Amino acid sequence: MISMKQEAASFVTELLGELGAIGAETGGGVTRLLYSPEWLEAQKFLARRMKGLGFEVRYDRVGNLYGRLPGTMKNGPVILTGSHIDTVRCGGRYDGAYGIAAAIAALSYLNETYGQPTYSLEVVSFCEEEGSRFPLTYWGSGNAVGLYDWDGAAEVRDAEKTSLKEAMEAAGFGKPEQPEALRSDLAAYIELHIEQGPILERMHKRIGIVEAIVGQRRYGITVRGEANHAGTTPMPMRKDALAGASEMIIQLEAEAIQWGEPLVATVGRIEAAPNTPNVVPETVQFTVDIRHHDERVLDSFSGHIINKFKEIARWRGLELSTVCWLEAKPAPMHKDLSDRLEKISGDLSLPYRRMVSGAGHDAQLFPGVCPTAMLFVPSKGGISHSPDEYTAPDELADGVSVLAALLYELAYEEKLP
Amino acid sequence: MISMKQEAASFVTELLGELGAIGAETGGGVTRLLYSPEWLEAQKFLARRMKGLGFEVRYDRVGNLYGRLPGTMKNGPVILTGSHIDTVRCGGRYDGAYGIAAAIAALSYLNETYGQPTYSLEVVSFCEEEGSRFPLTYWGSGNAVGLYDWDGAAEVRDAEKTSLKEAMEAAGFGKPEQPEALRSDLAAYIELHIEQGPILERMHKRIGIVEAIVGQRRYGITVRGEANHAGTTPMPMRKDALAGASEMIIQLEAEAIQWGEPLVATVGRIEAAPNTPNVVPETVQFTVDIRHHDERVLDSFSGHIINKFKEIARWRGLELSTVCWLEAKPAPMHKDLSDRLEKISGDLSLPYRRMVSGAGHDAQLFPGVCPTAMLFVPSKGGISHSPDEYTAPDELADGVSVLAALLYELAYEEKLP
Repeated sequence: MISMKQEAASFVTELLGELGAIGAETGGGVTRLLYSPEWLEAQKFLARRMKGLGFEVRYDRVGNLYGRLPGTMKNGPVILTGSHIDTVRCGGRYDGAYGIAAAIAALSYLNETYGQPTYSLEVVSFCEEEGSRFPLTYWGSGNAVGLYDWDGAAEVRDAEKTSLKEAMEAAGFGKPEQPEALRSDLAAYIELHIEQGPILERMHKRIGIVEAIVGQRRYGITVRGEANHAGTTPMPMRKDALAGASEMIIQLEAEAIQWGEPLVATVGRIEAAPNTPNVVPETVQFTVDIRHHDERVLDSFSGHIINKFKEIARWRGLELSTVCWLEAKPAPMHKDLSDRLEKISGDLSLPYRRMVSGAGHDAQLFPGVCPTAMLFVPSKGGISHSPDEYTAPDELADGVSVLAALLYELAYEEKLP
Repeated sequence: MISMKQEAASFVTELLGELGAIGAETGGGVTRLLYSPEWLEAQKFLARRMKGLGFEVRYDRVGNLYGRLPGTMKNGPVILTGSHIDTVRCGGRYDGAYGIAAAIAALSYLNETYGQPTYSLEVVSFCEEEGSRFPLTYWGSGNAVGLYDWDGAAEVRDAEKTSLKEAMEAAGFGKPEQPEALRSDLAAYIELHIEQGPILERMHKRIGIVEAIVGQRRYGITVRGEANHAGTTPMPMRKDALAGASEMIIQLEAEAIQWGEPLVATVGRIEAAPNTPNVVPETVQFTVDIRHHDERVLDSFSGHIINKFKEIARWRGLELSTVCWLEAKPAPMHKDLSDRLEKISGDLSLPYRRMVSGAGHDAQLFPGVCPTAMLFVPSKGGISHSPDEYTAPDELADGVSVLAALLYELAYEEKLP
């Protein structure tokens, strides 16, 4: 397996270079929004490449692109691997694209080396994951697993008021004669992705084996006090919404640290009103993003922190209102598949770490449908969603090696989980 | 003196009602920006009223309006009292206007009751104090005391790019033949104003005797950390600019409370970047406004708090930059005049409080020119710069009584400080 590393490194690097040129911004970064011309060009490019490698290529009705290496067992289970082709605005070349390029590399290598598999292997280039054009995420994988009813697509609109349905049809999809997106033939879904975080790099690990993708709570918090003259209002007579919010933010951070890894809690957005240097702030709104892979921890931490906020507000004579506007369940990966990834990494002498994914991925939609696994390669500086996203060619090849080995077990050795 | 109270209450209330109709906004509030048509109408209205009361009326070159009750001593010292006629946008009817109306009421009462004074008494309606149209404050009193060189007025522009000079000329001022604004004949300046704060009301006092107008430091603070993914960056690996700023804000509040009244410190404005719920904030900018009447305290508190901020930044691995962009010296009022105001309040059985003004006033420009005193009447709910600004008629009359008594001592009894 190690003999393929150099070849995989150059194959993936080259493919990512070609893909990264599609939707490249003049100021750096790549933008391929769902159903845009750049997006369509990228899918067509991948279709041509996979056809050239001998894969059977097809689109489904929402524009997910599949490349199939058919198994000897007709109508047998399918082993699916891949990621998403869309990007954030001015994103990097690796997020999503790497999982597709690596999957193509792995299938191509397996096909050349071992011929036809028993179970069919498929690469998927999901049409959408990021939610950068329309206010929804996982449009590709969500259709594959039956999360979305695509008839609702006429309602969802982008910033230019184009509906998802109109955009889909303009790109040539959404036709009744096209194959349905829903899959019911999957025996496993394996996704390879860049980490988008600093852990592997800092711990000098080459492979991250994802045990779970975190669940998430997102709150909107509003703290209301009294706007007062900053010169004439003595400190004890103030109801300062920003001082109250600051105390809450510090408390949130302290509690998150105390509860320990892998819990993370973030206040990313804050707005004060009237937001004038010489007026004591009347209202502060801020967001709280809490993530953990265990729903019970999510529940109890969220409840605990909201109570702390209430105490602070009461003590300071402030009004508090909290709205939970996002609640995503944690997605545990398949234990047997994770164990196999661990063994493979060990066999290939690749330092690995079992870890939790703090970011969302297409893989989190599959545990209810089929055994699912996810693996990471390091992200330089933990940077993602930026033109500075980078993973070195040999690290890219590590991921391909581990992925190919697992796909071999599943599709050739018929060791289904 | 108490016999005049009812008359003063109705005189001042009526005058404030008429003034408040000039520049009244349909949605409530009064807007009279420097040199605007409403501003000019208000000055002309006051000129007519004062002429009708027998005062000698004149404008100076920048549009300050004076009404004079000439003393028997020709070319003798002048006792000046008044405030400013301009308002903030959608301001109240009392801020500034009350000090002028009360001065007219007091002079009119003294003239009717005691005839001509020995020293001349003058009411001033300063053209500008708020800084609401042009980015400068105290334009009226600043010209009277020689703070401003009005030739620079061509450079300062309002939001519509009109220069101060153009606006002044359009309103009929700025002509060489008009009297110079600078005064060199003043024996005292006395200003009566609403408190614009909650202290008198909460302490059930009728008169505030201002011992000093606070000095002020205003800082712009920038905290710089690292933008990171809110899901994939473990808590200990973060450099969260907002958590750092929050700790600074809490520290500032705690220290200000600990240093004690009358020190006040306020963070009124905050901006975070990128200000996105799922990204750890990279940069936070906030303002710090610190006020105290003793420059040494201002100095040492400011130095202390900036050091605390530096410690917090260092501890958290954040970059800190601080810019002091406003530094106003405290203005102590004249002790003898304050003592006299105290005695007068006692004689009139008006509960009073010696206090510090946390807001800036025209009076703060006069201590270098002549003995200066300032007194307050209560503001309902401490509210100011708002259509809800309110002081009851009998409280307005209290101020007139105390002011008239002091002016009597100064101009009739010739007891100069």
